[in-house]
Amino acid sequence: MAINSLFSFLKPKENKFFPLIIEVGSCLHTAALLLVEFSQTTDKKKAKEIFLKIKEQEVKCDGFTNNIFEELNDTFITPFDREDIHTLCERLDDVLDYINSSAKRVVLFQPKNIPEKMIEMCKIILSCCESIDIILHELKNIPRRPYLVLEHCSKLHDLENKGDDVYEHYVTDLFQNETDAIEIIKLKEIMQCLENTTDIANIVSKSVKKIVVKYA
Amino acid sequence: MAINSLFSFLKPKENKFFPLIIEVGSCLHTAALLLVEFSQTTDKKKAKEIFLKIKEQEVKCDGFTNNIFEELNDTFITPFDREDIHTLCERLDDVLDYINSSAKRVVLFQPKNIPEKMIEMCKIILSCCESIDIILHELKNIPRRPYLVLEHCSKLHDLENKGDDVYEHYVTDLFQNETDAIEIIKLKEIMQCLENTTDIANIVSKSVKKIVVKYA
Amino acid sequence: MAINSLFSFLKPKENKFFPLIIEVGSCLHTAALLLVEFSQTTDKKKAKEIFLKIKEQEVKCDGFTNNIFEELNDTFITPFDREDIHTLCERLDDVLDYINSSAKRVVLFQPKNIPEKMIEMCKIILSCCESIDIILHELKNIPRRPYLVLEHCSKLHDLENKGDDVYEHYVTDLFQNETDAIEIIKLKEIMQCLENTTDIANIVSKSVKKIVVKYA
Repeated sequence: MAINSLFSFLKPKENKFFPLIIEVGSCLHTAALLLVEFSQTTDKKKAKEIFLKIKEQEVKCDGFTNNIFEELNDTFITPFDREDIHTLCERLDDVLDYINSSAKRVVLFQPKNIPEKMIEMCKIILSCCESIDIILHELKNIPRRPYLVLEHCSKLHDLENKGDDVYEHYVTDLFQNETDAIEIIKLKEIMQCLENTTDIANIVSKSVKKIVVKYA
Repeated sequence: MAINSLFSFLKPKENKFFPLIIEVGSCLHTAALLLVEFSQTTDKKKAKEIFLKIKEQEVKCDGFTNNIFEELNDTFITPFDREDIHTLCERLDDVLDYINSSAKRVVLFQPKNIPEKMIEMCKIILSCCESIDIILHELKNIPRRPYLVLEHCSKLHDLENKGDDVYEHYVTDLFQNETDAIEIIKLKEIMQCLENTTDIANIVSKSVKKIVVKYA
Repeated sequence: MAINSLFSFLKPKENKFFPLIIEVGSCLHTAALLLVEFSQTTDKKKAKEIFLKIKEQEVKCDGFTNNIFEELNDTFITPFDREDIHTLCERLDDVLDYINSSAKRVVLFQPKNIPEKMIEMCKIILSCCESIDIILHELKNIPRRPYLVLEHCSKLHDLENKGDDVYEHYVTDLFQNETDAIEIIKLKEIMQCLENTTDIANIVSKSVKKIVVKYA
């Protein structure tokens, strides 16, 4: 074995991990863009098509996450602990699950219309996914300069609060203006799922902050 | 002190832990079997009796978990970290709490009938508990051969997705076929609790996968 | 540099942390006291004033938590791991978020009246915050004498079960006595948020128990 290939064998095989996690971020970002488009579509056939594209991103993301989990079993992702990376990936997966589930509920429950505040919530989710995307690109730099990462973690915290606020005012409006109790239950169920997406996005930021506390 | 007893004193006292955690798995399995029976019982008096048997398993499981926590304070459970075992046990406890709470809600809320999809959900919970039971029997073998454990972790992930699906289709049916809003709220509340049970079962699998990532 | 100041430089700067976390506990306690007062107030104007005072505690608590996070980045909090302290603080913050959110929902949704069981739930939350307050005062003593801490962790577990029970019986009453479906949805939504507060208080106790398992 030549000295060169010996060194390349010893070199931590971290190269695969960072590109993979960037792909996960890209799936989330794409799915969130589709969700906003979905929420603005009144044509039910087109809405269903967009929902299927969101579903595709979810499947694609699952593939990347599984690849990362396999990588974790036989590589060191310098300088992070396996378990921290594992937790982070699971939570990223959860965000996409919730996006998918929210769209699915709209398709299944068929509410009479999509209220303006629901579109607003989808845009908040898009902002969350944009921040997550930036964080995942910057993951590698946490030990040296964690500032951009921390800035977007703090943004995810604010977006969750904004999500709470939109949810609460939306439900207040519902109670005041909608007289059909079943329609209230439907819309609340969908909006709850969207609001949970912003909660999970903030839980992603908690995993990231924990990594910063440990390695920065 | 003879050399023999000295060695037995030094030997990690791990013997108690594995039998105890297998007992916890057995409580979960029994409770899930009772839950399926409960969901299929139309006689209210008999249903209440089964509910009390589920409650018994919960109390029994609490006892085993407390014993494990005491063990954790004065023994090393080679080769796992105390805190990982601690987290796992708490989540196992949560699964049984949710099973118990689901049955309790049926007893308290007295819905007009138990829909077919609710029985289906209880059977999914039973499959979850069967997988957890196998995982707990195999815990000891994680460092050498984690394959069966990982197979059932992946099964728990699939069962959670199946649970989601049954929940969403069930609620869709409810919105289409039930006109009494209060009955919808009741049934949704019970079904939500059952669906949460499959979520927690998957969170158990996340603790286990974290252990595999660390020790396998 | 004199020898004295050299030593004081080397001495772990843990002094700031313990007073700060005691301030967090004090915010929680004050907010819970206000919540009980809020739940007993029928005058809507006065209720809104109390809600704003709860909000103040939340902002104050955020300040203390941020100070702790900054401390964590450049100090060792002997003898605990940074990440355990970090997780604990996040959960303490969550408790106050839920208290605030519960009061906010009452202000926004304007239910016809505040049922007795809701006041009871607020008193359970007060007991939770009293236990958390004691735990935070005792945090320093975990390595030497964790008994008082463990006693209050166990109390938080019991209070969560009590909260569950009050919630379930309350919803049962609602289904039996309230005929307005929209009012049911409103009251259930508020009560759910209060009940979640007791869940999070128990999750605080889980972080603490994990610290005890590691350091006691």
